[in-house]
Amino acid sequence: VATTTSDIRTASRFEVLRGVYAAGSTTRQALAAAGPLSFATVSNVVAELLDAGVLVETAYEASAGGRPRARLGVNAGRGRLAGVAVSETHVRVEVFDLALQQVSSDQRPLRLAEVGAEELVAAITAGVTTAIAGSPAERSEAPGAGRDGAHESGVLGAGVSLPGYVWSRSGAVPLFDGMGAAGGGALGGRLARELGLPMVTDNPLKAAALAELWFGAGLGARTLVTVTLGTGAGAGVALRGALLRGATDSAGEWGHTTLVLDGEHCRCGARGCVEAYVGAPAILRRWGRPAADELTGMAELAAAVRAADPVAQSIVQEIGRYLGAGLANLVNIFNPDIVVLGGWVMDQLGEWLLPAARATAAARALARPFAATTIQRSLISAHRTCLGMAAFALENFLRDAGVPSSRSTPIPVRH
Amino acid sequence: VATTTSDIRTASRFEVLRGVYAAGSTTRQALAAAGPLSFATVSNVVAELLDAGVLVETAYEASAGGRPRARLGVNAGRGRLAGVAVSETHVRVEVFDLALQQVSSDQRPLRLAEVGAEELVAAITAGVTTAIAGSPAERSEAPGAGRDGAHESGVLGAGVSLPGYVWSRSGAVPLFDGMGAAGGGALGGRLARELGLPMVTDNPLKAAALAELWFGAGLGARTLVTVTLGTGAGAGVALRGALLRGATDSAGEWGHTTLVLDGEHCRCGARGCVEAYVGAPAILRRWGRPAADELTGMAELAAAVRAADPVAQSIVQEIGRYLGAGLANLVNIFNPDIVVLGGWVMDQLGEWLLPAARATAAARALARPFAATTIQRSLISAHRTCLGMAAFALENFLRDAGVPSSRSTPIPVRH
Repeated sequence: VATTTSDIRTASRFEVLRGVYAAGSTTRQALAAAGPLSFATVSNVVAELLDAGVLVETAYEASAGGRPRARLGVNAGRGRLAGVAVSETHVRVEVFDLALQQVSSDQRPLRLAEVGAEELVAAITAGVTTAIAGSPAERSEAPGAGRDGAHESGVLGAGVSLPGYVWSRSGAVPLFDGMGAAGGGALGGRLARELGLPMVTDNPLKAAALAELWFGAGLGARTLVTVTLGTGAGAGVALRGALLRGATDSAGEWGHTTLVLDGEHCRCGARGCVEAYVGAPAILRRWGRPAADELTGMAELAAAVRAADPVAQSIVQEIGRYLGAGLANLVNIFNPDIVVLGGWVMDQLGEWLLPAARATAAARALARPFAATTIQRSLISAHRTCLGMAAFALENFLRDAGVPSSRSTPIPVRH
Repeated sequence: VATTTSDIRTASRFEVLRGVYAAGSTTRQALAAAGPLSFATVSNVVAELLDAGVLVETAYEASAGGRPRARLGVNAGRGRLAGVAVSETHVRVEVFDLALQQVSSDQRPLRLAEVGAEELVAAITAGVTTAIAGSPAERSEAPGAGRDGAHESGVLGAGVSLPGYVWSRSGAVPLFDGMGAAGGGALGGRLARELGLPMVTDNPLKAAALAELWFGAGLGARTLVTVTLGTGAGAGVALRGALLRGATDSAGEWGHTTLVLDGEHCRCGARGCVEAYVGAPAILRRWGRPAADELTGMAELAAAVRAADPVAQSIVQEIGRYLGAGLANLVNIFNPDIVVLGGWVMDQLGEWLLPAARATAAARALARPFAATTIQRSLISAHRTCLGMAAFALENFLRDAGVPSSRSTPIPVRH
């Protein structure tokens, strides 16, 4: 969480951009008034973003006694960004315009624990290529737009989320070392070559946190916790806009914290982990009906709850109770302003899980931090991880377009 | 974790001061070479600290072909700082010189859950007055040194740690609202008036984290977790030198996270909390021998372990296992560089608890973050909370001595 001159430039740029995204259309004056930056800083940053073609002046409005004020907006057509979420069961690609509106997508099955690096790279490359081909800008481009296209309305970069761990039968296998927004190891380099795009990789929990921070309920939160419920369970944390990463970029593994000492076996090798109770396989084991795959099984459980099936109803209550105890732990540890839950299990079961979880958390968390916390479902309509990875790709593009300072002087901030 | 111009000044000052504390005696050149600050920044900050009388130039050393380099040290005699730890069972005061070496102390019993604000303020005031009277500077001062004494070798301030919650029979009662390094509510104001000193209050978990950050094992750690084991159990977290506080300053309540769902009743009203297994009352309940007070009981348990009493030995193994599972949760959530354990229960039982806890954590935490983490006992010989509170008081003194900027422009830092 240190700052350097270049970090401050970068942070100011994101601050402005977030302000424009949040407002849709705004002015330099409004950005300065609403945010922490001075008018001079806002003006400098806006000038850079206009130069880079990321922002455009869309109109002028009269100002009392002064010069007309320019309205600013994101130049949606400046280029596209691909956000890729590799989960344990499939590869999902969403392509966004620069306003971070989804323009096309692709989804293909992939059993992550069963494939090698070859197949993984091939699946991601195929998904990205297909999704890009299906996006409007590409379809309307003349054949051979080639490099010019890449500069005008082409794809500015891709962000690929990969789980920090792949869970094989033999336990937790780290997929990457030193993964992070900047890197991705050997596999990341290979992907970048195959895709022929500037690329970043990161962990899906971090992507979810970034998506909420930029476009979701976390906008403006000082202490934001995001929870993602799918095959696995995990948390992302942002403190005053900076993601919590930890020593080796694996912070947020809430899914593998013990909730029930000596409880259910977890695929990580330990017992009683949160994920062993609220992860999709645990939920479906409780439900006990065979299904073609997890997604189908979960949809069937949701349908049964909706049809007032008492077994299904009691299952979502039980799962909600485990979830609530796990959320109470996050509330007590982080004392967050807001906890935002997403992921495909929340999409399916959230309307029942959330009230049950909230009631349990209310009973178990300390009263004061619980009262200070809003617990809610994600309001993001796009795939949250894909959106977050596209935002990482945008950060990367802007960083490349910037002028980094040559001397890095991190300064620890106030206590 | 935002930065403002004044925050950066403040942070630079602490960075320099920490460097001098760590080195004992050093030079501007060595500080610039070892730390993140430029030589120019180090020089500016050193000039300020020399002006404030906090640093002194102690000697000059020859430099190859250049001007002689001044050696810098802390001006220990510049003044004293009082660090006060209010726990559930007593009030401990330690007085430090400006080199943060303890010069005197006072300890008196106080049943926090049973006293009102009057008695609390009286006990703290008596403790601080007694400890100050017992410190060498005071004893050698001529009677009537008065205000001059306060400026030369007097007490520059006090830091008082108060638990965020007082646990009465009816559950958790917040002692303060909006507590923090800067405040302390109505009780804080009253204390400041009684003591007649610049005063700060904070939570003991934050004080422990600050002490480790400045003087302990956390020096230089990017992600530091401190654990305090006493009557209660809790954690402090520092991320790149900044304390994690949360929305209402209660982050770190790890002692009240669920470890054993539906397990032992905890005084917070929930069940199965970490504290319900590793807090002193839980340990002594397991041991089952009556004792005059917790401290005596714990010393007797320690003596029994040392005498190879099999019951006592199996108890520390059991407690170590619960502690280890709780530490594994912290490792998975924060992915820290280092976890430092302190508190009076660690002082008594640490030599047995720590190996047992480490073995359990190794088996339960994810392999990669566990491998990246050092788990160790605190190396601080002073009372950790008192030392941390004295450091907060020093921060406060330096802040008052500084020139804060008039415009606060927090800037979110990089992701």
